[in-house]
Amino acid sequence: MEPTQDRVVTACLIIIGNEILSGRTRDANLQFLAKRLGAIGIKLCEARIIPDIEAEIIATVNACRPRYDHVFTTGGIGPTHDDITAACVAAAFGLALEHHPEAVARLKRHYGPENINEARLRMAMVPTGAVLIDNPVSAAPGFSIGNVHVLAGVPLVMQAMVDGLLPRMRGGPVAVVRTVACEIGEGVLADGLAALAARFSTIEIGSYPYFRSGYFGVSLVLRGLCVAELLEATEAVCALVRALGGTPLVTEGSNGDNNGGAGP
Amino acid sequence: MEPTQDRVVTACLIIIGNEILSGRTRDANLQFLAKRLGAIGIKLCEARIIPDIEAEIIATVNACRPRYDHVFTTGGIGPTHDDITAACVAAAFGLALEHHPEAVARLKRHYGPENINEARLRMAMVPTGAVLIDNPVSAAPGFSIGNVHVLAGVPLVMQAMVDGLLPRMRGGPVAVVRTVACEIGEGVLADGLAALAARFSTIEIGSYPYFRSGYFGVSLVLRGLCVAELLEATEAVCALVRALGGTPLVTEGSNGDNNGGAGP
Repeated sequence: MEPTQDRVVTACLIIIGNEILSGRTRDANLQFLAKRLGAIGIKLCEARIIPDIEAEIIATVNACRPRYDHVFTTGGIGPTHDDITAACVAAAFGLALEHHPEAVARLKRHYGPENINEARLRMAMVPTGAVLIDNPVSAAPGFSIGNVHVLAGVPLVMQAMVDGLLPRMRGGPVAVVRTVACEIGEGVLADGLAALAARFSTIEIGSYPYFRSGYFGVSLVLRGLCVAELLEATEAVCALVRALGGTPLVTEGSNGDNNGGAGP
Repeated sequence: MEPTQDRVVTACLIIIGNEILSGRTRDANLQFLAKRLGAIGIKLCEARIIPDIEAEIIATVNACRPRYDHVFTTGGIGPTHDDITAACVAAAFGLALEHHPEAVARLKRHYGPENINEARLRMAMVPTGAVLIDNPVSAAPGFSIGNVHVLAGVPLVMQAMVDGLLPRMRGGPVAVVRTVACEIGEGVLADGLAALAARFSTIEIGSYPYFRSGYFGVSLVLRGLCVAELLEATEAVCALVRALGGTPLVTEGSNGDNNGGAGP
């Protein structure tokens, strides 16, 4: 990995897929990418979910690529008529779309002489000058062009591509995170928390209520770049909880869940 | 419900939440909303996931509300310092934020005289002229202002709000959907599918590979507004599958999954 940058490195994810917007499929790629980027000091700042429509894809890529250090796309790189991501990214950059010799070779090897065909070779088409992203699962590669990284939509393939791609990237400082869980209501904590959020202006403090096994509580998630400040803010939050009659439980990390939040 | 509109009714979802972008929480609201809107003929055309940053929220609300019939937001309507959605939506519309008398009454009733406080009463603040969206779970309401509908982020509460809100909305024609599953590779189907997609230009045909219990296959999802056309296109897709040596399995609906897609 190249040396870490001093400043925060930013990213945006563009999820291309009618199947997500129709509700057919629940996206799994955002959470995976967010965690993996966070671990190397790249902050996912925005995500957009857009349909398989050429003009939308081109406009969204061009709206996002000047705003963030990195733009990732997922979806739309297979062999069928609805796989238009590569062509749209090429158009967004004003580049031609052409067969990449190494990608052609990989697909021919993967499918063999009997099963390779023109449709499958479409998966070897990338914008001129693009760098391939390996696909150890099913051969058809993703690619990077400029600061845009084009990944598969199928999670197993997307994840393998991310594993191959991230070591090439330079992250910034990695956020440190603590969670203070307690059984005090958000409305009781609110004033004290607001004062602490103002006092520790470099620490992001999020308040997430949950409802589990019959009791409710709140996870207070603190995130920052300086360990000493983070620990000081965490201790201050614990003191607030104790002052309100609660028992704070501190854990490292964000103590997250896969359920899209929990109860009220 | 008011009478159905003739044209397609469109919607956008803005998910407001650092916890989604950090990967702490996997969003569950998009899929729920997409399905419920689709069932009444409102098409979710875009979603954006943005951080708890005032300027971002205001800019995104104002970018989206002229583009779609309806804009939904989730997240950021609790009592803590990081709950800034109502204030941002008011700012986006150039409206004042004020205590809504009915919302105040509901919160006072819910919390009782001992537990109501200023922080909790912040949850009764809405833009001038907003219409409340009921929250039968935890009292604090959402609201609609213009074509923007502000919902809770906690899925249980968000879902109850949607249940209350949707009967007020007029949808357009409801899409009809069929899925043709088969064990033919996408690359083999691609040319024939492209020809059918061109022939049935009013039918959206998506191709989604899956990997289940040791065998792979493809779900071909057909979606359209005219039942007769949809059935004709479905039969044509089945004929294509048979001509390629496969056995098509047709089901109603999109045969979706919760796993964010499956294998390669």
